[in-house]
Amino acid sequence: MPASPRSTGRPVALIIARATLLAYPELLPELAGALHARGHGVLLQVIDHEREADAALAALDPGGVAGIIAAVRPSDAAIARAAAGRVPLLLYNCHAAGPTVDSVSCDHAACGESLAALLLEAGHRRFGIIGASALVGVERAGGAVATLRKGRALTIETVRGDYSYASGAAALDELFARMKPRPSAIIAVNDAMAIGALDRARALQVRVPRDLSVVGIDGTQAARLPSYELTTMRQPLHRLATTAVDLLLERIADPLRPVEIRLFGGEMIVGRTARLERPVRRLTVARTPRG
Amino acid sequence: MPASPRSTGRPVALIIARATLLAYPELLPELAGALHARGHGVLLQVIDHEREADAALAALDPGGVAGIIAAVRPSDAAIARAAAGRVPLLLYNCHAAGPTVDSVSCDHAACGESLAALLLEAGHRRFGIIGASALVGVERAGGAVATLRKGRALTIETVRGDYSYASGAAALDELFARMKPRPSAIIAVNDAMAIGALDRARALQVRVPRDLSVVGIDGTQAARLPSYELTTMRQPLHRLATTAVDLLLERIADPLRPVEIRLFGGEMIVGRTARLERPVRRLTVARTPRG
Repeated sequence: MPASPRSTGRPVALIIARATLLAYPELLPELAGALHARGHGVLLQVIDHEREADAALAALDPGGVAGIIAAVRPSDAAIARAAAGRVPLLLYNCHAAGPTVDSVSCDHAACGESLAALLLEAGHRRFGIIGASALVGVERAGGAVATLRKGRALTIETVRGDYSYASGAAALDELFARMKPRPSAIIAVNDAMAIGALDRARALQVRVPRDLSVVGIDGTQAARLPSYELTTMRQPLHRLATTAVDLLLERIADPLRPVEIRLFGGEMIVGRTARLERPVRRLTVARTPRG
Repeated sequence: MPASPRSTGRPVALIIARATLLAYPELLPELAGALHARGHGVLLQVIDHEREADAALAALDPGGVAGIIAAVRPSDAAIARAAAGRVPLLLYNCHAAGPTVDSVSCDHAACGESLAALLLEAGHRRFGIIGASALVGVERAGGAVATLRKGRALTIETVRGDYSYASGAAALDELFARMKPRPSAIIAVNDAMAIGALDRARALQVRVPRDLSVVGIDGTQAARLPSYELTTMRQPLHRLATTAVDLLLERIADPLRPVEIRLFGGEMIVGRTARLERPVRRLTVARTPRG
């Protein structure tokens, strides 16, 4: 990021959820850095829930911004209204059906699929899913569950959190209360909830990963702390952020070009929170009769 | 924060360092929430180093913003230029000499003093300080060192980090290399560096807090994780943020009112990373001669 970017144009609005800022603090510096580097300020709109995305979009003065990056998913109707008002809009880390609008995203469903396949391969059969109601979480959990159903999973139980550490801890309690016997593996749709579940499991004296595997998605700095070393899928954050900004600026320069979707795969980070070896079978060895 | 605040006026610019966003993710949602609640958007300017604060301030279009909150300390000259240009400016968590400009801040020196006094009281005599070059860190370290010098400290060695986790880990190595015998207590000027030093100490098989005490300042969510439970001074974040926004809006409404400084004390959080009991002295007990 250059030392003192002079904003040459109007700012770009960024609509983002409070939970995203808290659980994924690396994101905003990346996006702001990419915008600053291209001469744009960031007009920040923080919302509490994804359902407020439409209102946040409607509240923006189209004349006051060069374009909008929505790191939450507005409704199809709100996206159509933005298009009708000719406000350049890009969806970050989510996408619209159709597609009707530019988007840059990690392939969330594929992240869930990869983790599920890894755990199935290691012999896990009883799964807890810590999901969330926002679209990103729904896609991640959907990918995981679809793979588990096609695989040899015996039990799949889902509870919902709100992406926060505390909701991950509470979700572990709920999964343990519902599942008898307990799950051997838990897939959380973000790292913050996985870390919350992990700490709660430790507090309950559950051995991770021997008796319980816990995996997340995002690859945050917190997940890589020595206290956690979480098994997770890392988002290619820098590439996502710079691509998002470039694509939005191309749209601003050429409002009529075709809608473009860019999807990036995640990268598997094998940490220390998942048992990935099949348990050794106890073989019954016939004794050799004494000669 | 209301569901969909319509920005009634021009946005408020927020100049903030990347390191602050990463080490203290709770801050931005608080500040943005307080501004949204009062009908203002946030025009975000992320800088890499405090020394870029002047350039960031100069780059803002005074006609485009209602006012500026600087969460970094610009130079006195830059503050004077902003005043001359009649741009309402408020310093967040730092203050200017004179004083020449409104500011809302935690009492950084007092935070350092409190931690130093606590550790002295517990009998610690050999201290490592993990400081930083930005003003907040200088004040925090200054408060700690002044108290240690007035107290019974035998050794005070300072190294500098950049507020990041990684720099805290590196600082621990440097303190251990320089100090023979090793320090018994380390005061880091923020939680992220304290956590970095803590993890590094654990990797070196140093027992915390038995053989080494580590304390930080900020009271972040990360510091309160069960893996850390850091002893630290918590900033009254919500009160700081709402006061900052209120004071800036009062300044916008009345440009001629006298300069106002608001200083808030921190709150001691006694975690599990500091030895706060005096070691039991081995008394030489004279044997009672046998009767």
